[in-house]
Amino acid sequence: MTSAQERLTFDRDDPVLARLAWSRLAEPGDARAARLIETVGPSEALRAVVERSGRLGGTQVGDDVGSWLARYVPRLATLDPARDLASVRRLGGRVLAPDDDEWPAGVRDLSVPPICLWVVGPASLQPLGDRSVALVGARAATTYGEHVARDLGYGLAERGFAVVSGLAYGIDAASHRGALAAAGTSVAVVAGGLDRTYPRGNEALMRKLAADGAVVSEVPPGSTPSRSRFLQRNRLIAAIAGGTVVVEAAWRSGSLSTARVAAGLGRPVAAVPGPTTSMTSAGCHALIRSGAAVLVTDAAEVAELVGRLGEDLAPEPSRSRTERDELDAVTRQVLDALPVRSGRPVGALCRTAGLDEASVVSALGRLQLRDLAERQGDGWRLAPRARSAGGGSARAG
Amino acid sequence: MTSAQERLTFDRDDPVLARLAWSRLAEPGDARAARLIETVGPSEALRAVVERSGRLGGTQVGDDVGSWLARYVPRLATLDPARDLASVRRLGGRVLAPDDDEWPAGVRDLSVPPICLWVVGPASLQPLGDRSVALVGARAATTYGEHVARDLGYGLAERGFAVVSGLAYGIDAASHRGALAAAGTSVAVVAGGLDRTYPRGNEALMRKLAADGAVVSEVPPGSTPSRSRFLQRNRLIAAIAGGTVVVEAAWRSGSLSTARVAAGLGRPVAAVPGPTTSMTSAGCHALIRSGAAVLVTDAAEVAELVGRLGEDLAPEPSRSRTERDELDAVTRQVLDALPVRSGRPVGALCRTAGLDEASVVSALGRLQLRDLAERQGDGWRLAPRARSAGGGSARAG
Repeated sequence: MTSAQERLTFDRDDPVLARLAWSRLAEPGDARAARLIETVGPSEALRAVVERSGRLGGTQVGDDVGSWLARYVPRLATLDPARDLASVRRLGGRVLAPDDDEWPAGVRDLSVPPICLWVVGPASLQPLGDRSVALVGARAATTYGEHVARDLGYGLAERGFAVVSGLAYGIDAASHRGALAAAGTSVAVVAGGLDRTYPRGNEALMRKLAADGAVVSEVPPGSTPSRSRFLQRNRLIAAIAGGTVVVEAAWRSGSLSTARVAAGLGRPVAAVPGPTTSMTSAGCHALIRSGAAVLVTDAAEVAELVGRLGEDLAPEPSRSRTERDELDAVTRQVLDALPVRSGRPVGALCRTAGLDEASVVSALGRLQLRDLAERQGDGWRLAPRARSAGGGSARAG
Repeated sequence: MTSAQERLTFDRDDPVLARLAWSRLAEPGDARAARLIETVGPSEALRAVVERSGRLGGTQVGDDVGSWLARYVPRLATLDPARDLASVRRLGGRVLAPDDDEWPAGVRDLSVPPICLWVVGPASLQPLGDRSVALVGARAATTYGEHVARDLGYGLAERGFAVVSGLAYGIDAASHRGALAAAGTSVAVVAGGLDRTYPRGNEALMRKLAADGAVVSEVPPGSTPSRSRFLQRNRLIAAIAGGTVVVEAAWRSGSLSTARVAAGLGRPVAAVPGPTTSMTSAGCHALIRSGAAVLVTDAAEVAELVGRLGEDLAPEPSRSRTERDELDAVTRQVLDALPVRSGRPVGALCRTAGLDEASVVSALGRLQLRDLAERQGDGWRLAPRARSAGGGSARAG
């Protein structure tokens, strides 16, 4: 008999490799594995499985721990955490453990937190917290639902909120796209490995998120998405984000499970109403009727709901009231149309402000003179002084 | 100088005529007139105005009562309550005073109840109470809103609720029509006199309501609707009905005032959600967001909300559980599709139950044998035994 110990292809005493190995051994949401790892550390926990494996060939033991550990034995031979790590690094990604600085604080609230997180993309997960919103909903969304999801994604990104969703068709994809359109941060939490694109039709979107935002998974590369992994993924979306909004959901939609987890974690939960004649709004209406969700109709209402309860609420982009009041109406309109982050071209500012190009250009000149607007790339954005003036005026007034 | 007393064309000591005279003298919602009439009776109250009238030509008096009574003097000469009574009787109508048996109990809760009610139509106002629902909303309704209003009107009438509304275009008219289509009771509360059709385009609907339901007004024949009378009419709708549902309403819709009055009277208030992109749902969403209204999506939810809090809750149409359980699935489906009141043709039963004609006809045969269904007109309905079986089984179980 070959002992399981001999079959391990890596040093199980390396705590990082041992943790990554557990990410493949245990399914997401496995409470006993999580508790064992937390209690004795990943290396010791792994040793227990290997020992159990050795005894499987010999005499049967009756102890409880031994018997439930048996479920992990079949996967022992497949473990190659160094290969998994190399694989995710080839994608430009990284792995986070609970003691990493970037570990998203929200997932600590889960009764069964992830063992590690596989991440690709430039966005840091650490600062998300209350400045992030999960937008979730039906795959079989209506045109109305996708329109609302895109508007919410855009409006929240404009307000400096990261948009967290699940990369599915329908509401998820529209939410990500809205945030990306506003040059905001968007984070996709997926149910399979980072090297798997699911669904295939969202491959370009996944690449864009990996390039500009982040794609996050609880399972190692090569893992396929499954029904239970989708459910566990939903709990992760709810935990990472500061609040959850269900945009469109039928009666038995998986998005309702995301909302339930969010509520269980004490996070604000909201739902968007729709026509009572639309089955894809029935779940939203049920959430609102039962008091489990607040009715929201736009990004401002979501921002108020999620931001209000936050402890690390970022300063709202606001300007000195006096200075603003000195501006003429047209210049104020242009000021209000300026984004906080990446510059917006003049053409887009014309559309947002509802003004012609000559008016926008001359207003930008006045705003630049007052140090309230600045060029960025091909466009214009709020100058740092305009962004921070809110704090100053709050102290003064 | 001619005294006002001489100008009166009727015996002001007749309490009925004096009350009808007050209905023209005072505008709806006039708190001081209502209090004076309640305190000293309509005849004495009228005498005070007549006296005030006499003094107007003589020395000015400084007493407060005298001065506010002056506002009624200009209308004294126009009073002809006997003519008003004859006029409403020519329409086949009647006048209700607070001590009449038919006086709707709900209006007693108003801080300023009506002085009298001018009514035409066979429906009695007395039994409305918690078995009635006000369906109100925008005149400029959307197709969606009218569709929902009609469905709610139909579904509530089917459940034995009277539908109260304001005969306006849009939501009001659709609500009335839905209730009439289910052969239910519908009551229109109008802002002008019963001889005035407003709006003109709803003349046929008004005639139908006068023939099959009721049309109610607080002002005497000949009175034109005015802005303040519309608002006072809204309070009356809220008070007569057991609960109020706002189907579609923009931000500043008059329907919101009906909802406010209903809430102030402690009546359940509900609102129907719609697309967040529709301005005519914004008022509904605001009511739900603020907690002033419960979100409802169908007649069953409205019935539960309004019926639950009722004190004189009529028995719900239900059947003995045991007997029902003995039926096969198809027969149960047909049983559930049978209306309580006017018979439904076989074709309509097929659509409601989702069954073919042969199945429905043979199920009707089985139900008739068990005394659970009966013919009515061209159609079928629940037999009396099926309707009352609920009470019996509740006692037994």
